[in-house]
Amino acid sequence: MKKRLPSTSGSGLEKPLKPDLKKRRLFLQSGLAAGASLIGVSTEASTVPGKLVPGWSRHLGAGVASSGYGIPSRFEADVQRRTLDWLHARREASISFTPLQSQQGIITPTGLMFERHHGGIADIDPERHYLLIHGLVKQPLKLTLTELMRFPSVSHIHFLECAANGVLNYPAAQYNSLQFTHGMLSCCEWTGVPLRLILNEVGIRKKAKWILAEGADAAALTRSIPIDKALDDALIVYAQNGEMLRPEQGYPMRLLLPGWEGVTNIKWLRRLELGDQPWDTREETATYTDLLPTGKARQFTFVMETKSVITSPCPENPLPGKGRVAINGLAWSGYGRIKRVDVSVDGGRNWQTARLHGPVQNKSLTRFSMEWDWNGQTALLQSRAIDETGYVQPTLSELRKIRGSRSLYHNNAIQTWRLNSNGEIENVQLA
Amino acid sequence: MKKRLPSTSGSGLEKPLKPDLKKRRLFLQSGLAAGASLIGVSTEASTVPGKLVPGWSRHLGAGVASSGYGIPSRFEADVQRRTLDWLHARREASISFTPLQSQQGIITPTGLMFERHHGGIADIDPERHYLLIHGLVKQPLKLTLTELMRFPSVSHIHFLECAANGVLNYPAAQYNSLQFTHGMLSCCEWTGVPLRLILNEVGIRKKAKWILAEGADAAALTRSIPIDKALDDALIVYAQNGEMLRPEQGYPMRLLLPGWEGVTNIKWLRRLELGDQPWDTREETATYTDLLPTGKARQFTFVMETKSVITSPCPENPLPGKGRVAINGLAWSGYGRIKRVDVSVDGGRNWQTARLHGPVQNKSLTRFSMEWDWNGQTALLQSRAIDETGYVQPTLSELRKIRGSRSLYHNNAIQTWRLNSNGEIENVQLA
Repeated sequence: MKKRLPSTSGSGLEKPLKPDLKKRRLFLQSGLAAGASLIGVSTEASTVPGKLVPGWSRHLGAGVASSGYGIPSRFEADVQRRTLDWLHARREASISFTPLQSQQGIITPTGLMFERHHGGIADIDPERHYLLIHGLVKQPLKLTLTELMRFPSVSHIHFLECAANGVLNYPAAQYNSLQFTHGMLSCCEWTGVPLRLILNEVGIRKKAKWILAEGADAAALTRSIPIDKALDDALIVYAQNGEMLRPEQGYPMRLLLPGWEGVTNIKWLRRLELGDQPWDTREETATYTDLLPTGKARQFTFVMETKSVITSPCPENPLPGKGRVAINGLAWSGYGRIKRVDVSVDGGRNWQTARLHGPVQNKSLTRFSMEWDWNGQTALLQSRAIDETGYVQPTLSELRKIRGSRSLYHNNAIQTWRLNSNGEIENVQLA
Repeated sequence: MKKRLPSTSGSGLEKPLKPDLKKRRLFLQSGLAAGASLIGVSTEASTVPGKLVPGWSRHLGAGVASSGYGIPSRFEADVQRRTLDWLHARREASISFTPLQSQQGIITPTGLMFERHHGGIADIDPERHYLLIHGLVKQPLKLTLTELMRFPSVSHIHFLECAANGVLNYPAAQYNSLQFTHGMLSCCEWTGVPLRLILNEVGIRKKAKWILAEGADAAALTRSIPIDKALDDALIVYAQNGEMLRPEQGYPMRLLLPGWEGVTNIKWLRRLELGDQPWDTREETATYTDLLPTGKARQFTFVMETKSVITSPCPENPLPGKGRVAINGLAWSGYGRIKRVDVSVDGGRNWQTARLHGPVQNKSLTRFSMEWDWNGQTALLQSRAIDETGYVQPTLSELRKIRGSRSLYHNNAIQTWRLNSNGEIENVQLA
């Protein structure tokens, strides 16, 4: 490789850039931006907007670092995570939902990540917190945050989804809202230490097959985790989207089990105990089990299976009018990478392959999109995700055949949005 | 590809996961986590911390969505972007710096992105804002935010760096602080519309070679952009890290020119005028030009050339003691992907190749790290980035040979941190 020196010439354009104008796409003519104004002005600079110059172009705005930590525009104040007070008796043990209808890209804004607490948000002083690793180990260990941060770290983008995401579509569609049907979902860049590095430090005894993970919150939430997952891609994370974990996400440290149901990703992590069998804690027996048609419940349904949803249009994002529209959505799989997403506008009779927005990452949200010429008539919009293992997102009836109608968790069925002729979207379930 | 059905069995573990315990790395013994407590306890559950249970484990915390938009832990309140009041006469036309010493991963928290304003933060009502595209076009166009958002969008992770980043190391090191030496730098996931799609709509006249981009802020900041860049990877962005642009980042829309000096990424974008030559605006003549030893200035030095810096240790992150330590840092290049980063502990005499944390993305921050056994003696720590085009980050003396000492912008020299025997880091410049 030839060493190149710092440039002294201008422009910095080393290689000629080739414009690709062959496929000229006339979005305006075809209606995609039908509302845009084709203005009858000359091409002179005198057409600059200036007759009624707005205040922000006439007066100095606020200065730098007037806030050492910035917040969104006041014109975006309605973009909030929201809760439903009837869901649980108290907000300290409830759920808030991410406004997916407003999310752009794959990163969920840290302030908008969904919440699920069982005993409220622990307000932990990191100087008074430590992680204990004990049980079937050769040498127990206590780690403070500072000590944890001295281990080699990794940063990965992963989705996080509550096992109960989609519960408001069981047994019937209850809310006309993407935020409430799919909003127990978020995705961010997590930074932390591979758990296997820490387990290598303490030395795993041969009989150890499971790990009990326990939170330091008032619920002392506990789950049993197979040791294979701990040695695979499990992380003890301390940061998300570039900064230290938010309190509601487990500050100062949490377990991250990529692709596994949210509740296993123990927040405010204070203890890992190695043992030879699962502990059958409350959150893996009384709850977070799936009641099947046989009357038996399945236990330890860790993986969040392959799923997708159209985020635009959706109930909160109606179409402004017929013509060319962009259908956008999100797909994800707890098994790995998304391979393909299909979109149907006729309730699943015909499918077209959507465009995936790369880089497609492992156990991460993945954007898809498709352009569509809407004729203004009622349509049934669906998306269907397929992952790299060949898993195909099921229809609701396929899912019900296997799981019946009493299963609450792990609803990864294809979502149907009915597009009405006025552009509005309804949450419907096909027979 | 065989279609897989939704699972009914438990565990969800379809493939056996193979633990890789061969390379057992004893960080504790080697000192990486020397402060961690190897506790002399039995392996029974009775060793759970419990004697002095902290309040957060005994009392319910705050409930969900008690804040519809969350904020960091109160224990992280000192992680802030900061400014230097002597830099400019007024904060409305000054700079704030990203606390890179606290950044984990590659995503900069949106609230901590550095700022550079020339007339303060415009507080724009998106209902009263539009983008005008005119000049040497076939059909001028006015676009509101809503109209812009109807175009097909893309989301890419890109760094953004002020041309003046590193100015506080010119002509001599002035601050013992990573935040002030390198903090005019940030990286996030940007969402917007490729500018070429919009130019295809308006139709480019043959003579058009340059585009004037103008902001709607009180400074009406303007820069001339070559049309080749506009047709390559330029975006009109409206979102960052999943949410709408922050006011200080150009809400409701800005130009994004991946890899190019920050000032060309016009915020609060209100006008694009196509012309046949550059406009020679104030910000590309009186400022944002580089004075060379000959007395001549070079103009249009768009690309932010290949650069890297060690973020841990750094002046704000001293080493806690000798033994095995992790050296971490960030690398980036306006020309494309980072190919390799080398680390030296002896001021550049010997180099070792660091590990890059993938996926390595185009014109994005890239993390690197290297483990090192520190013997407790003074050392000179450096990092040197090499990108996919073969460009090698220069030493300060190499840079000075070419640019002299009166050049203020585009300082991408190798940074030297002097590690003292007490673990503290000093910002030094080698002769």
